[in-house]
Amino acid sequence: MEKLIISACICGAEVTKEQNPNVPYTVEEVVREAKSAYDAGAALIHLHVRWDDGTPTQSKERFQECVDAIRKECPDAIIQPSTGGAVGMTDLERLESTDITPTPEMATLDCGTCNFGGDDIFVNTDDTIVNFAKIMQEKGIKPELEVFDKGMIDTALKVADRKGLLNHPMHWDFVLGVQMTATVRDLVYMAESVPAGSTWTATGIGKTAWDIAAATIAMGGHVRVGFEDNLYLSKGVLAKSNGEMVAKAVEIAKLLGRPVATPAEAREILGLAPLK
Amino acid sequence: MEKLIISACICGAEVTKEQNPNVPYTVEEVVREAKSAYDAGAALIHLHVRWDDGTPTQSKERFQECVDAIRKECPDAIIQPSTGGAVGMTDLERLESTDITPTPEMATLDCGTCNFGGDDIFVNTDDTIVNFAKIMQEKGIKPELEVFDKGMIDTALKVADRKGLLNHPMHWDFVLGVQMTATVRDLVYMAESVPAGSTWTATGIGKTAWDIAAATIAMGGHVRVGFEDNLYLSKGVLAKSNGEMVAKAVEIAKLLGRPVATPAEAREILGLAPLK
Amino acid sequence: MEKLIISACICGAEVTKEQNPNVPYTVEEVVREAKSAYDAGAALIHLHVRWDDGTPTQSKERFQECVDAIRKECPDAIIQPSTGGAVGMTDLERLESTDITPTPEMATLDCGTCNFGGDDIFVNTDDTIVNFAKIMQEKGIKPELEVFDKGMIDTALKVADRKGLLNHPMHWDFVLGVQMTATVRDLVYMAESVPAGSTWTATGIGKTAWDIAAATIAMGGHVRVGFEDNLYLSKGVLAKSNGEMVAKAVEIAKLLGRPVATPAEAREILGLAPLK
Amino acid sequence: MEKLIISACICGAEVTKEQNPNVPYTVEEVVREAKSAYDAGAALIHLHVRWDDGTPTQSKERFQECVDAIRKECPDAIIQPSTGGAVGMTDLERLESTDITPTPEMATLDCGTCNFGGDDIFVNTDDTIVNFAKIMQEKGIKPELEVFDKGMIDTALKVADRKGLLNHPMHWDFVLGVQMTATVRDLVYMAESVPAGSTWTATGIGKTAWDIAAATIAMGGHVRVGFEDNLYLSKGVLAKSNGEMVAKAVEIAKLLGRPVATPAEAREILGLAPLK
Ligand SMILES: [Mg+2]
Ligand SMILES: [Mg+2]
Ligand SMILES: [Zn+2]
Ligand SMILES: [Zn+2]
Ligand SMILES: [Zn+2]
Ligand SMILES: [Zn+2]
Repeated sequence: MEKLIISACICGAEVTKEQNPNVPYTVEEVVREAKSAYDAGAALIHLHVRWDDGTPTQSKERFQECVDAIRKECPDAIIQPSTGGAVGMTDLERLESTDITPTPEMATLDCGTCNFGGDDIFVNTDDTIVNFAKIMQEKGIKPELEVFDKGMIDTALKVADRKGLLNHPMHWDFVLGVQMTATVRDLVYMAESVPAGSTWTATGIGKTAWDIAAATIAMGGHVRVGFEDNLYLSKGVLAKSNGEMVAKAVEIAKLLGRPVATPAEAREILGLAPLK
Repeated sequence: MEKLIISACICGAEVTKEQNPNVPYTVEEVVREAKSAYDAGAALIHLHVRWDDGTPTQSKERFQECVDAIRKECPDAIIQPSTGGAVGMTDLERLESTDITPTPEMATLDCGTCNFGGDDIFVNTDDTIVNFAKIMQEKGIKPELEVFDKGMIDTALKVADRKGLLNHPMHWDFVLGVQMTATVRDLVYMAESVPAGSTWTATGIGKTAWDIAAATIAMGGHVRVGFEDNLYLSKGVLAKSNGEMVAKAVEIAKLLGRPVATPAEAREILGLAPLK
Repeated sequence: MEKLIISACICGAEVTKEQNPNVPYTVEEVVREAKSAYDAGAALIHLHVRWDDGTPTQSKERFQECVDAIRKECPDAIIQPSTGGAVGMTDLERLESTDITPTPEMATLDCGTCNFGGDDIFVNTDDTIVNFAKIMQEKGIKPELEVFDKGMIDTALKVADRKGLLNHPMHWDFVLGVQMTATVRDLVYMAESVPAGSTWTATGIGKTAWDIAAATIAMGGHVRVGFEDNLYLSKGVLAKSNGEMVAKAVEIAKLLGRPVATPAEAREILGLAPLK
Repeated sequence: MEKLIISACICGAEVTKEQNPNVPYTVEEVVREAKSAYDAGAALIHLHVRWDDGTPTQSKERFQECVDAIRKECPDAIIQPSTGGAVGMTDLERLESTDITPTPEMATLDCGTCNFGGDDIFVNTDDTIVNFAKIMQEKGIKPELEVFDKGMIDTALKVADRKGLLNHPMHWDFVLGVQMTATVRDLVYMAESVPAGSTWTATGIGKTAWDIAAATIAMGGHVRVGFEDNLYLSKGVLAKSNGEMVAKAVEIAKLLGRPVATPAEAREILGLAPLK
């Protein structure tokens, strides 16, 4: 079984300090959270950024500032900007996060449209998927294909892969608990639905986080934890940092005998070039 | 195994006479297609309506006119208006099809948002699902819960069933080949994902129609065929009528030893009151 | 989707003329049944033989006589002797069927032990599996890996494939309704459990035959029908010949738009050398 | 989610002191191991017994002696004798373990025949299953239905449940890694294959033990650990006691937020009468 890549989704676009005071907004806070995760064993930082008041932004400048600051403290981490942005942003806004220097090694690419509660929808039309895939391919960015349901895997294959816009092997992120429920059964179904040779990460939203992490580690997948997906270390106990959550994932991995990948090992598993 | 309910989706909102000249637009054409399906063995007519030029509409008046005309030729068919409408309609417009007299026994209820190609999305927010469920429950209309992906089942359960807005046992329609692929594997996964006691219908879009129909008949599910989902009787052969497609489903059922339900038997299977 | 290989299991070791008078015992009867199946579209004859009183035998001489006689009437059929034999036979007896001239292109290889009702068990120890695999590999016989449960696939991979005794791609036969139930769900699980690149045939014992055949055709698998597995053409109607059953499989394939493979096409699909 | 029942299979019939010196043979050793497991959190002791030289036996006297001695140290544990015995024993010998006083609350019932390596098979014919089920039902013993493959679930339902010989809800034990592989995918398939309302325990043989335990805890199943199934606490580290293994299962459960059941709670979950 491959070593375990732990991704830390340290910030997200929607969680707030009201929910957990350790959610980072400022550059300093973002760096603090990234470093805590990196020190605990995360090889990859999945990054959203905010303005100092917490408003989510895809601003190129803000991403540049945060990435540069993280880089100093986490010298070899894989830093993966989100292109998901927040509900309501245009495609062009969302792609700004990939315009930083140097070009990111990876970025997320959402593979379909789904409900986000109430009257909100998270829109990723087929055209958006195609455009994002094309641009990432041109820039040499490896997409992390974010899927919230089984048919989003099929959508990515139908609208982008069939046109040659996705390089193989692909890397997927199964986000469970938004549209598809976060059960081990669903997790297995997703893992069985991606093309042979793919790597995949999984995350369970909210209280399902640790069950999904444990099952994923047992299955040979990779794990994402962090404030974006879950604010609690255990029932009723708010996490003090993303690092605490990464440490918990490391502890589960240790119990299951699965070694944790360094950033260099993670790059090898993901087919990324070594960091210069 | 229960008898087989065959639903005929005779018209749809998007297929055109350019694709198959037998697609019905006028009231007369709609009746012709409904009757051909009914005579061939369909117990249920899933109904969209159009203006004479083919434009889809949810107009209460047009639905009333079509349902009344169908009723004369198909005296005991279950007539199930769509509330899906077409891309771009408001919720209120979409619900007009249920305002006819007498109140329909069933209507479709779409359980999530997904892509419809290019820049189109088919929007059914959580709020829409809740509202549609509430209104159908109040009016005594049994919803056919249309789902295009596994997580849409989960969405229906989370946003509507948990609030008591869906009566049990539920009836589902698995529409495969839009977002989720139309494979037997997916079909089995869907069938295993609905609450115990549910009944379900499946349909495969386009050329997958007959494979999905055959597997569904073998599994004990119910089958939907018709111009809305597929225009061909076999490769390269346009269907001359919805009746031809229903007849083909009946032929498969006969080969597999599964008797076809009359409208009265279908009502019993679906838990609908007998027709007065 | 590949063309459909139809295998006819014309005789078996356990069914009797008391159950269906058309079960073949004599050489003439065996030829009659093989020819009826071949003429109807079977590319492969799966062969057990009997003495004239119906007793099953693995006698090399009887196999030779039957194969030679079938060959005259079915010049290019793939003739696949069983090595399953009947409950109680030794391994050496069971392998006699492969000692005929010319060496058979294929033979069955049972991949585990299971109950056969009452106090009967069908014994295929790990050692037996290894020996059969080794001998077939040496003789250039392609095994049809017969499995009655999911774990028998795992057994074949663990005890024989891991030692290099099974050439790739493999060909499997899922026999459903003996130990594992014959449901479409089980069928899908089996098909998803064989190594990538494998081909597979499925059969449902008894009244499940046609449901399993239809789902298999829809899935892209290959189909086995015949007296060994099922004696009825439809409920209460005994099949008059194996040919009648093959014709029914052909009819389902036609409805689902799946062309039937000739023996030459079947050899190509199975990776067998063309017949000289 | 129900509390977690941890079963300790402290001894087994086949593992030896040569493999791990802590495997218990004598009565004192058996008690030592049972107590270590009980103290660590096991609610249920799954029991095989041996003679002092390690030879497995189903001797009523030996079972009586061991159960009495365990009862003193583990006053409220559920003690579940095995009726599996060892390869080669007769049915009558195997059932002696249930003749002790008081009658055991539970006993295992193996639901099919499978290979045990080399030329060994573990024989449980359909007749054996029926007889064991009948006797346990008469004696008021709740069977733990041990299954090594999916079709063994089907066998139990077909040969025993259909005849009314198994009380509902049933309790199952999925033993993975003997015939069926020990993957999370297989585990999910098994869990989805038992009748609604069933409870189930799972165990992965050998190095798969902890992955299966973690996935099971995440899924809401119950866990079996102990020397019978696995001798190592982690890679290369022999377990010093069954208690060490139970403690590790407890640790995983704690990380996943799943409380561990006391014996009294386990009896309630399993539908056993409270201990007098
Ligand atoms: Mg969607
Ligand atoms: Mg077996
Ligand atoms: Zn994100
Ligand atoms: Zn419709
Ligand atoms: Zn055979
Ligand atoms: Zn045991």
